[in-house]
Amino acid sequence: MSIQPISSFAAGEWIAPGAGARAIASAITGEVIASAGNNALDVQAMLDHAREVGGPALRALTFHDRARMLKALGQHLNANKQALYDISFDTGATQSDHMIDIDGGVGTLFVFASKGRREMPDDHVYLDGELEQLGRTGAFMGQHICTPLHGVAVHINAFNFPVWGMLEKLAPTLLAGVPAIVKPATNSCYVTELAVKLMLDSGILPEGALQFVAGGLGDMLDRLGMQDVVSFTGSAETAGMLRSNKTILENSVRFVAEQDSLNASILGPDALPGTPEFDLFIKEVSREMTAKAGQKCTAIRRIIAPEPQVQAVIEALSARLAKTVIGDPRLEGTRMGALVSNQQKQDVLAKAAIIATEAERVFGDPENFEVVGADADKGAFLPPMLFHCADPDRAERVHDTEAFGPVSTIMGYRDLNHAVEIAKRGQGSLVASVITHDPAVARQVVLGAGAYHGRIYINDRDSMNEATGHGSPLPHLVHGGPGRAGGGEEMGGVRGVKHYMQRTAIQGSPDMLSAIGNRWVPGATEIAAPAHPFTRTFNELRIGETLHSAPRVVTLDDIEHFAAFTGDTFYAHMDDAAAKRNPFFPGRVAHGYLLLSFAAGLFVEPNEGPVLANTGLDNLRFMKPVSAGDSIKVRLTVKHKTPRNDDYGEVRWHVTLSNQDDEKVAEYELLTMNAF
Amino acid sequence: MSIQPISSFAAGEWIAPGAGARAIASAITGEVIASAGNNALDVQAMLDHAREVGGPALRALTFHDRARMLKALGQHLNANKQALYDISFDTGATQSDHMIDIDGGVGTLFVFASKGRREMPDDHVYLDGELEQLGRTGAFMGQHICTPLHGVAVHINAFNFPVWGMLEKLAPTLLAGVPAIVKPATNSCYVTELAVKLMLDSGILPEGALQFVAGGLGDMLDRLGMQDVVSFTGSAETAGMLRSNKTILENSVRFVAEQDSLNASILGPDALPGTPEFDLFIKEVSREMTAKAGQKCTAIRRIIAPEPQVQAVIEALSARLAKTVIGDPRLEGTRMGALVSNQQKQDVLAKAAIIATEAERVFGDPENFEVVGADADKGAFLPPMLFHCADPDRAERVHDTEAFGPVSTIMGYRDLNHAVEIAKRGQGSLVASVITHDPAVARQVVLGAGAYHGRIYINDRDSMNEATGHGSPLPHLVHGGPGRAGGGEEMGGVRGVKHYMQRTAIQGSPDMLSAIGNRWVPGATEIAAPAHPFTRTFNELRIGETLHSAPRVVTLDDIEHFAAFTGDTFYAHMDDAAAKRNPFFPGRVAHGYLLLSFAAGLFVEPNEGPVLANTGLDNLRFMKPVSAGDSIKVRLTVKHKTPRNDDYGEVRWHVTLSNQDDEKVAEYELLTMNAF
Repeated sequence: MSIQPISSFAAGEWIAPGAGARAIASAITGEVIASAGNNALDVQAMLDHAREVGGPALRALTFHDRARMLKALGQHLNANKQALYDISFDTGATQSDHMIDIDGGVGTLFVFASKGRREMPDDHVYLDGELEQLGRTGAFMGQHICTPLHGVAVHINAFNFPVWGMLEKLAPTLLAGVPAIVKPATNSCYVTELAVKLMLDSGILPEGALQFVAGGLGDMLDRLGMQDVVSFTGSAETAGMLRSNKTILENSVRFVAEQDSLNASILGPDALPGTPEFDLFIKEVSREMTAKAGQKCTAIRRIIAPEPQVQAVIEALSARLAKTVIGDPRLEGTRMGALVSNQQKQDVLAKAAIIATEAERVFGDPENFEVVGADADKGAFLPPMLFHCADPDRAERVHDTEAFGPVSTIMGYRDLNHAVEIAKRGQGSLVASVITHDPAVARQVVLGAGAYHGRIYINDRDSMNEATGHGSPLPHLVHGGPGRAGGGEEMGGVRGVKHYMQRTAIQGSPDMLSAIGNRWVPGATEIAAPAHPFTRTFNELRIGETLHSAPRVVTLDDIEHFAAFTGDTFYAHMDDAAAKRNPFFPGRVAHGYLLLSFAAGLFVEPNEGPVLANTGLDNLRFMKPVSAGDSIKVRLTVKHKTPRNDDYGEVRWHVTLSNQDDEKVAEYELLTMNAF
Repeated sequence: MSIQPISSFAAGEWIAPGAGARAIASAITGEVIASAGNNALDVQAMLDHAREVGGPALRALTFHDRARMLKALGQHLNANKQALYDISFDTGATQSDHMIDIDGGVGTLFVFASKGRREMPDDHVYLDGELEQLGRTGAFMGQHICTPLHGVAVHINAFNFPVWGMLEKLAPTLLAGVPAIVKPATNSCYVTELAVKLMLDSGILPEGALQFVAGGLGDMLDRLGMQDVVSFTGSAETAGMLRSNKTILENSVRFVAEQDSLNASILGPDALPGTPEFDLFIKEVSREMTAKAGQKCTAIRRIIAPEPQVQAVIEALSARLAKTVIGDPRLEGTRMGALVSNQQKQDVLAKAAIIATEAERVFGDPENFEVVGADADKGAFLPPMLFHCADPDRAERVHDTEAFGPVSTIMGYRDLNHAVEIAKRGQGSLVASVITHDPAVARQVVLGAGAYHGRIYINDRDSMNEATGHGSPLPHLVHGGPGRAGGGEEMGGVRGVKHYMQRTAIQGSPDMLSAIGNRWVPGATEIAAPAHPFTRTFNELRIGETLHSAPRVVTLDDIEHFAAFTGDTFYAHMDDAAAKRNPFFPGRVAHGYLLLSFAAGLFVEPNEGPVLANTGLDNLRFMKPVSAGDSIKVRLTVKHKTPRNDDYGEVRWHVTLSNQDDEKVAEYELLTMNAF
């Protein structure tokens, strides 16, 4: 078997391994299959290339452009995923592990692509939160915005997910408009290299947007500045070393860490043997122990069950784990493959030995287990191992020793508060789960232990068919955790994109804020529409284009007629004495929906035209009641435009209804779909 | 004059200065007026007290309870502010400086109190962002929440704002439900001590919520854990030392820093002498140089003006600065007092000397200026000093030397891109300002330099009457900046409260999420209302209480009648052929507002009762068109309740309209005000 050279992609060129290269062994056979690393890699040139070529090219695109780029990347990887599957077996992973890594990674690209299109503007500035009025009249306002950092994101990834680990960081980084340098763990970097090659060869990415380091980073971190970001996944020990880097500290370089985590799963007190939740618990725990041979940062390390149920859980879990076929992951019947390396296997055995000082091994013998289709002495195989800790209150090491393999410890709790206290002993983790059918149990755990966890996963008979699994970070949700888990956050939809942007509070007049955000701010200059705005296409309409309607008097007849027609005979509209007793009304008033309907009558252009439909309405507030005899008029202003597909886009209109004294009666945002 | 002992408040007791106490001198006379510090302070007992007494007491309150507490604290301090003014003069501050510090601090309490009531729930769990559907049917969903950290916030504050500096951190901390230990700079800690005494004596705070250290913190930081937060304001040097603390790094203790900042102000190319913007610029710069004797982290250190205007700016600014009366701040005519200490004065002079290596001093002579009513040799007085740097591109130190006093450097720019490049040379700052009347100039600066700044302040003739000033951080907006400014964020409304909470992604069934968030999630169990929900008071209504209406057929007559009545004759409702050509409609369809109006007719209970008014509507989306002959029915469910005053509260209803085939036609949230 030949040894494959794994190259780095630096400043536009593929650089083969050189001095300082490391050998990489197959997890299954122990034989060397590849080599990676080159001490002569010019890391400064990589940083310069990213900052000077990749960054400007990405920043020239809008969020929507970049979202489309992510979607195209996902489609390209999807079309080529068999090649990625094929070379992934040597990491010890099974086909179903590949699905988590490769399909999961592609899915992450798709979710960020979709969120970029739906939740971000087709522009260069992201508006964060609402306008803040800072003065009496609204002549001076505040608006938070986010713009891309001008530096480079350095992604340092763990060995266990060579594809997903890259893509879950790359998707929000590129969507933000920031170039990335990806450095996977060397053990499995040949899979990442192929994924990078596929993406680069696709021609989808602008030059400089993505670079790749196989092997070590050299002194790259010593060359980072205030516009750069480091996102690290790996051990607490390495994280601690990196985060105390002098340059990182001195330049306030953003440092996101996702590190060790002693994740817990709690069996609810209601989930007795025989309930669907008990069976579900056994299934979830067993899956988390064996998927990826337990090499998941989110795997369940601590099983917390009611004391009276501990024996039943051990028995049911042992019975299920006993069915785990361990062996060559290429074989169809194999349920669990090998750990990534023999070094990793030795590390897990060493950690298991530490756990064994406080807990008894009740399932799995690393000296005696069956391996199918591979040489157990050469590959990095281990059986699932279950420990039982009889005294979790006095124990220490079961709460702080992460054996990064198929190892978990069960411990009993006396009552739910005790379970919460045990969960908290992890001192911060990525995820805790609660399997319960009782919402009160779920709320108690969340209120008690929420501050210690980045994610809390609750599952029961109602959700189990759609539940995504204790161990699965999702692009929609934050992945990360406090304390031992590193204190970082990744993903979580647009939140994850913001990690690569700077938030800036902008203060200024409505005209200034309108120009900066491409979103009309009340008080900004109105542009007189050259024709009725409903006759103008999406592309013709300008932000700030405004229609002022004629006034219409609202009569008592109108109110009574509307009440009879719709059936809405609420007392505030029908009974003057009752309305007067109400703290809000001077007497009978017009229906809010009557005002909305009359307003539409006042601003609508009836003829067929570019306005295709009224699709919705946001933030309607009734500000002043309208009595019979009052009149209303409408101001309709183009607030914001968002393309939705190749044919049409959404126009958000700011609508103000005012009365004969120019007092605001109601305000809302109207959504229409308009042809291009 | 007697020397006042400044005590610490630790674990419920006032502890007088002891071994290790430091003398504090008056800024005006140089005489020792106080002493503070005690090496024997039991910092572990303080941490324990906060974590075990203060935290649980605060967490037992809801966000609204805590918001009311902040308001009461603000009112109490307001009623006692004369005492705070009186003792603040010795810090060198003038009465108008006191207004920034004391009134500004109280105002911050009020804004957070108001935001806590308006933007947070009357509950223990804050919902962060929207629901995320994670499966096909909605049986499993995600929701981010925030809950208070279980630790303690250690606030380390700068000398310049002894009251505001404490309150801007304390307000979000207490609102989050986290106890604080406040440690102000020793130089001005006597003012903070009085403010703390006033707050504690008011009896408004639960025990353990607030402790106070006059003098040093001892080894407190070495005792922090993963639930604690350090929020630091001060020099980059001290920040660097603290943030590399081993315990802080190892335990991923949140560390927020606000440190040095070379803030810039840019005069727009349009703002020629003679324009209102030119005059405004001179006024803003001069105010920032002299307020608080330039000891503001947000003060303008770099004045960036078009090259042709540099001379005019120097002249106008010099003329204005020449009017600055310097002296005893107790005197009414004094415009600028003393720096906080002679040590600070020496530091400023040393930094000015560094700046002088690259820039020429064009105004202000520290060897020769008038001091009114005080001894210039004893007090820490300095005149405003303006430098001119002729070559900002080649200069280094003017961009990285923060003389923390009345010192600023003007530099010329060739074009706006050059101005942006100069601004970025600060390598991250708290605030930059742009004085321009041209929105395109503002947008260019924001896109070019936004990533380097925490805040960008734009001002012109339109906003100047309400503008809050370049140098004023506001509770509504984020205060902090990247890079040299420390990379931290404070305030920014609820964002600032989140710094003291843990964000957790919760996954579960709709029933679970409803119970955890006290907010009904679509798909959760409906509670049959025992009577029409409009007959039930705010307090009687339960989350999930649901009304199902009878159906109503929508006829073609209805559509035509509604069109004629309202004037809304949009073609989709009136012209079958035109509607058919539209990508959204099968032919003529009912008006959206007709559906809303009929829906109200279907669910409203007409008689006088606890529902006082329909105040608004959110997130309306039309999902499927309704044709003549279709019928609609309504499901109305109590989604969320928020008390608004002593008499009534807001009920948020989830409303779903569906057709005869149970397909969703429209969905929205309705707001009513309901009597208790």
